[in-house]
Amino acid sequence: MSETTTRVRYPETDRMGIAHHTHFFTWFELGRTELMREAGCAYGELEDNERVFFPVIEAGAVFKSPARYDEVLTIGTRLVRAEGARVRFEYAISRSDGTLVATGFTEHASCDEAGKPIRMPASLAARLGTR
Amino acid sequence: MSETTTRVRYPETDRMGIAHHTHFFTWFELGRTELMREAGCAYGELEDNERVFFPVIEAGAVFKSPARYDEVLTIGTRLVRAEGARVRFEYAISRSDGTLVATGFTEHASCDEAGKPIRMPASLAARLGTR
Amino acid sequence: MSETTTRVRYPETDRMGIAHHTHFFTWFELGRTELMREAGCAYGELEDNERVFFPVIEAGAVFKSPARYDEVLTIGTRLVRAEGARVRFEYAISRSDGTLVATGFTEHASCDEAGKPIRMPASLAARLGTR
Amino acid sequence: MSETTTRVRYPETDRMGIAHHTHFFTWFELGRTELMREAGCAYGELEDNERVFFPVIEAGAVFKSPARYDEVLTIGTRLVRAEGARVRFEYAISRSDGTLVATGFTEHASCDEAGKPIRMPASLAARLGTR
Repeated sequence: MSETTTRVRYPETDRMGIAHHTHFFTWFELGRTELMREAGCAYGELEDNERVFFPVIEAGAVFKSPARYDEVLTIGTRLVRAEGARVRFEYAISRSDGTLVATGFTEHASCDEAGKPIRMPASLAARLGTR
Repeated sequence: MSETTTRVRYPETDRMGIAHHTHFFTWFELGRTELMREAGCAYGELEDNERVFFPVIEAGAVFKSPARYDEVLTIGTRLVRAEGARVRFEYAISRSDGTLVATGFTEHASCDEAGKPIRMPASLAARLGTR
Repeated sequence: MSETTTRVRYPETDRMGIAHHTHFFTWFELGRTELMREAGCAYGELEDNERVFFPVIEAGAVFKSPARYDEVLTIGTRLVRAEGARVRFEYAISRSDGTLVATGFTEHASCDEAGKPIRMPASLAARLGTR
Repeated sequence: MSETTTRVRYPETDRMGIAHHTHFFTWFELGRTELMREAGCAYGELEDNERVFFPVIEAGAVFKSPARYDEVLTIGTRLVRAEGARVRFEYAISRSDGTLVATGFTEHASCDEAGKPIRMPASLAARLGTR
């Protein structure tokens, strides 16, 4: 489980006065970015050096409690699968008093530059697999 | 089934060269906005005049084919449920040659201004129910 | 002068109940995209086929009147300069009753793939110059 | 001068491979949010408790060097004017090696809930004036 935090930005709020749901998927991305960095395979380097890409092929979220402007949110991220050409992360976003704000998942294909699914390099799977 | 179109905007693309998955949830919103307008209950008027709000409480999508800059996408939206304090829409986004780009759903609570779930006004359910 | 329209999207609003100012720069982009398409040099093809890029090097806007959810805005775009390695557009956004919502400009460098400034191909300058 | 940092998020990049210019205006907002918090007048509390709003009425930026995915950027913010019903901030964004990435400004009106310009409360001007 990796944890990182973000503050709700003003343009992430909508006229309902709460964070718009689309931004939770951006926050999920912050979560997996930090998890991968901690696992020793920063995603940017993966793309730049190994030409491996993890496009999202499925995503879902349950929104349990509204997030408000300037709130600090904690994004907990767990890698639940990394094998073959598939990677799956699960997320739980909570506020500082522990209230659960949202849960979600993303499923990724491991692809080459042209978008063709490829098995992850063994070294990458190993580093992720240690999570 | 309601249909509307949108073009992929430049800032909706990412460094992978394709539309970032978060924007599909915005496009779903365009779809249900038009469906509700066609059903005679424009969402903005619902909020402004009837003080009824439809926050998203669950959302999911399957991304089947990348969407590229300046492509025209067709968003097909279907209302699958509108009863009590719950509304559910389903979406299919495709490009002009008919290829399916993504499918998805959103589940909404019917709430008052304070975010408290309330049964939809009967007139609203009736208008939506005719879809 | 090229004209195109857009509707204010829900996630483009903020908790002040109006469209967040950042989105006006996205709307300006919609405006120049259509101007360039009408001039016979669709920007996507410019990037893909001629490997010419127009990154924004300066931008500014004056916000005169708030834009609200679901409003139809008209984006008027004018190309004011296209010579050497520089292109400049000016914009005026108004609502359907004619009220001016915002004005602005963007200044672009003409660059190659590596981000190095290059003179625009003569054919491109000619097509833009006819505006 | 207040300083805060942010990392370039994946969806903030575009198909040119760099951060899209619209996001710099969001980063400016992060800068003034922290400056105001440090000055003892957190902007959220200003809106919620004092019903004072600072909509952006003018904004501009010069983009000097591209920002890339996952880069840490430092946002330096300076309050240059806070008098009557006007507030002006200036910004300089740089990367960790000191390179200047962008500069910019935002001009704000001090408004009430209805969007009517009002003189800032004296206590607020005093707190901001100490910057």
